[in-house]
Amino acid sequence: MAFKTDIEIAREAKKKPIQEIGAKLGIGPEDLVPYGHDKAKVSAEFIKAQAGKQDGKLILVTAINPTPAGEGKTTTTVGLGDGLNAIGKKAAICIREASLGPCFGMKGGAAGGGYAQVIPMEDMNLHFTGDFHAITSAHNLLSAMIDNHIYWGNDLRIDNRRVVWKRVLDMNDRALRDVVTSLGGVPNGFPRQAGFDITVASEVMAILCLSNDLADLQERLGNIIIGYTRDRAPITCRDIKADGAMTVLLKDAMQPNLVQTLENNPAFVHGGPFANIAHGCNSVVATKTALKLADYVVTEAGFGADLGAEKFMNIKCRKAGLAPSAIVIVATIRAMKMNGGVAKADLGEENVQAVIDGCPNLGRHIENIKSFGVPAVVAINHFHGDTEAEIKACQDYVESLGSEAILCKHWADGSKGTEALATRVAEIADSGMAQFQTLYPDDMPLMQKIETIAKRIYRADEVLADKKIRDQLKQWEEAGFGNLPVCMAKTQYSFSTDPNLRGAPDGHSVPVREVRLSAGAGFVVVVCGEIMTMPGLPRVPSAEQIMLNDEGLIEGLF
Amino acid sequence: MAFKTDIEIAREAKKKPIQEIGAKLGIGPEDLVPYGHDKAKVSAEFIKAQAGKQDGKLILVTAINPTPAGEGKTTTTVGLGDGLNAIGKKAAICIREASLGPCFGMKGGAAGGGYAQVIPMEDMNLHFTGDFHAITSAHNLLSAMIDNHIYWGNDLRIDNRRVVWKRVLDMNDRALRDVVTSLGGVPNGFPRQAGFDITVASEVMAILCLSNDLADLQERLGNIIIGYTRDRAPITCRDIKADGAMTVLLKDAMQPNLVQTLENNPAFVHGGPFANIAHGCNSVVATKTALKLADYVVTEAGFGADLGAEKFMNIKCRKAGLAPSAIVIVATIRAMKMNGGVAKADLGEENVQAVIDGCPNLGRHIENIKSFGVPAVVAINHFHGDTEAEIKACQDYVESLGSEAILCKHWADGSKGTEALATRVAEIADSGMAQFQTLYPDDMPLMQKIETIAKRIYRADEVLADKKIRDQLKQWEEAGFGNLPVCMAKTQYSFSTDPNLRGAPDGHSVPVREVRLSAGAGFVVVVCGEIMTMPGLPRVPSAEQIMLNDEGLIEGLF
Repeated sequence: MAFKTDIEIAREAKKKPIQEIGAKLGIGPEDLVPYGHDKAKVSAEFIKAQAGKQDGKLILVTAINPTPAGEGKTTTTVGLGDGLNAIGKKAAICIREASLGPCFGMKGGAAGGGYAQVIPMEDMNLHFTGDFHAITSAHNLLSAMIDNHIYWGNDLRIDNRRVVWKRVLDMNDRALRDVVTSLGGVPNGFPRQAGFDITVASEVMAILCLSNDLADLQERLGNIIIGYTRDRAPITCRDIKADGAMTVLLKDAMQPNLVQTLENNPAFVHGGPFANIAHGCNSVVATKTALKLADYVVTEAGFGADLGAEKFMNIKCRKAGLAPSAIVIVATIRAMKMNGGVAKADLGEENVQAVIDGCPNLGRHIENIKSFGVPAVVAINHFHGDTEAEIKACQDYVESLGSEAILCKHWADGSKGTEALATRVAEIADSGMAQFQTLYPDDMPLMQKIETIAKRIYRADEVLADKKIRDQLKQWEEAGFGNLPVCMAKTQYSFSTDPNLRGAPDGHSVPVREVRLSAGAGFVVVVCGEIMTMPGLPRVPSAEQIMLNDEGLIEGLF
Repeated sequence: MAFKTDIEIAREAKKKPIQEIGAKLGIGPEDLVPYGHDKAKVSAEFIKAQAGKQDGKLILVTAINPTPAGEGKTTTTVGLGDGLNAIGKKAAICIREASLGPCFGMKGGAAGGGYAQVIPMEDMNLHFTGDFHAITSAHNLLSAMIDNHIYWGNDLRIDNRRVVWKRVLDMNDRALRDVVTSLGGVPNGFPRQAGFDITVASEVMAILCLSNDLADLQERLGNIIIGYTRDRAPITCRDIKADGAMTVLLKDAMQPNLVQTLENNPAFVHGGPFANIAHGCNSVVATKTALKLADYVVTEAGFGADLGAEKFMNIKCRKAGLAPSAIVIVATIRAMKMNGGVAKADLGEENVQAVIDGCPNLGRHIENIKSFGVPAVVAINHFHGDTEAEIKACQDYVESLGSEAILCKHWADGSKGTEALATRVAEIADSGMAQFQTLYPDDMPLMQKIETIAKRIYRADEVLADKKIRDQLKQWEEAGFGNLPVCMAKTQYSFSTDPNLRGAPDGHSVPVREVRLSAGAGFVVVVCGEIMTMPGLPRVPSAEQIMLNDEGLIEGLF
């Protein structure tokens, strides 16, 4: 059986002009700022005018811990959005933008798959509407102004060794991780150790995604701590006077992008913060706008539910005043089998026992989600080759926990494959069953917040943090940052901090290696393991195969 | 008398939808790729379809050597375009895009002034349609792939010390001029000396502006020399296999941008290569497209005529097969007075003798332009405060050379102020008087090309170049690059290489400090003096004053 590739399917799509997609949500052509014929930004004025309207229901799509088998979270988000529209509901989806850098490394593609995709796929994997370029510019303007301030006399007395604000590029470039800048003598400034992160790791990205409007954006940008004096007093972006110009650079980028699914349903694609050192969700502005315009809004969060859903609720929902009405946990039979100990090469063979052995990972996520007071339903994202017995084993397991697992075939069938899921999700959302609550209150001490997540979500016995880290947290509390939520950065492959520990481990320890204050974004990053903020290219980068073919079409990007 | 500022005038403009502007040139809405309601790219398909059409007349606007008094070349380009339309001609203008970096340093504004402006001004000074961001990405992808190649084993045997391809950012950031990259140990690669240029100095920018189409673009990108082996054998971008992916990144950027003047006439704004280490003209694609669609196309070249017009003709016209039908040399009474020895502070006082004393600078440019076989007319860009006697002195001088100088008041009056100029320029262009020829043939040796320009344009007695430079030029000739034109990089403030030597000096020497091969762009850069390829920010960068005001309008950018 020969399958069409994602890009073949995407190119066969009957795209509608973006104005028709906007019209489905009541956005007139004058309120859409077009970027080509198939992409548009929704104007800030229009968004402002929606303020008084009733909100739709928010549905989060999350997943089990990712495995190399793939789970299809974005694909299911798109499929569910199409499914809701297919059963007559007014629904929109909200997903993240793709980073340009990784497209030239391993693979592109952050727009779903099969018959559950968002288009135009090529643009979304390249420059799209320029948001990430604007973030890169805003970030690097601040960087340039910091070194410029030091160059011209350093009135703020910034300690050259304590500048924590790096530069960014939307590129996988390991050579830029650690650099020394300002070499070459007097005209080039004072040499110092510096470095580059990839743009999605920029605090500016996290800020853009958490800001309600341009005034909020500027306030948060101003709060960024760029470094310290010799006496360790913080210096902010506002001290450098960069916040105004950065806001100007981000003015257009703050407006959410509207595109469409293969089935011509509206999709907001906006923002893309890292899911480790940031919260990994699309923008608050896009989500809130979608909620004003649609009755159901389907969105997703990065990585598995232990990281993505936890941050979605404890950071994004808390900060933006949002509350999900239903949560979908995506699982695949293949991933269950890998959690049950099967190697990737052997996934083709039926193995019911492995499914059963792997299910506790899913069970743990269901339990965790319920602890937020939100009803959860499992979507089994069907793969060619899943057997009926395997599917039944998974469904029985979920039922034994008092939940339900619905088989979905959106990859092969589009919205027809998710009608059952959509129907059930709409019922749950409409039922008012959800009693959303965050996991911890704002005023809980920072260390206790970390422990709460580690024990209640990761099921660890203890958090290991040395005195230096505990002192740092206390210092931030004294400086007035104690009410911030924590943003956990750990491996996405396990509930624990050991990526090889699949299933549903407990009794483990969570070692905290480092804590970082993102005073602009408004969270404290808790680093529990290696995190990479500037990726490298592989031995044979996919860029070598990316080119225009004779018909002018892009080859090799997907 | 209180004048309105440029931005006040721009904001009062009655902008038309970009589709109406396209319609004036016969471009249908389906062939315009919109970016907002007031900017669009002209689709590559449409451009291809115009191939068989007759070309309009090309008119170059150039200027005397710039002085701190300002000469208003872009303003006059816009004013002449509007003037031609006002007298019933079908005219379009072609100018360069502005660089983002300098906007946050000293000042923005590369879109004309007064009542001769191109709009939307804010967008043009910020991200516009993302072309420069695409160039930055394409350039830096190649940079990342070079270090990545070395990291994974260096099969091409690139000499780590002889990598000549830097990185770029569209930012004034002196700290990045000289850096050491790949510090931090094994996972980050092999440390080496490196650096960043500003994006407009990228060879990718020059290539984009000289390429006829995407195939030509990819070919030229492939030809870029990124460094050398230990044996000094060149390594190209094609060897690194980056040319395909770079072309994909530049696919949209290759399509010219269409905007409008304050008088709703079509303006192509596309590309913006440095006028020192590159040729300083807008893109060949934009110029050629405009020539297919309009009867008269008014364009400009960077700096004064000794640099800008020389390169326009010897590089752009030669390479693209273009020939100007008329050339306008912009002069101002104030600049004549400065050339005549008046200090900037004293420009307000009438000083006819200083005008007369300064006129030889203008006279030299007129003579030079005529040596290309193209008829020249002088446009006196009127400033409030110029006296009738001063204007007459300048006009008399120009007449004494057998040319004419026409007073233009487009800054204050828009197209009404350039009707006389437009009428005369159209007459000249239509007359077929122009017998365009380049200054030197392709097959002249490189050193002789340099001498030809130095002696015939700069009126120097000699070119000083040491053996190393002469050997380098010979070596390139042997390697097959002898047929390339030369791209002179010297001060724009004087015919000589001494920026303080105003007027019309002769008998001076032109010292060549360095030569660089831009094998992709297709020229040899001849550096005669300090050239800055990464600017710095001033003590008080204008970024500190740039912000959104309470109405959401941008303040401080202009």
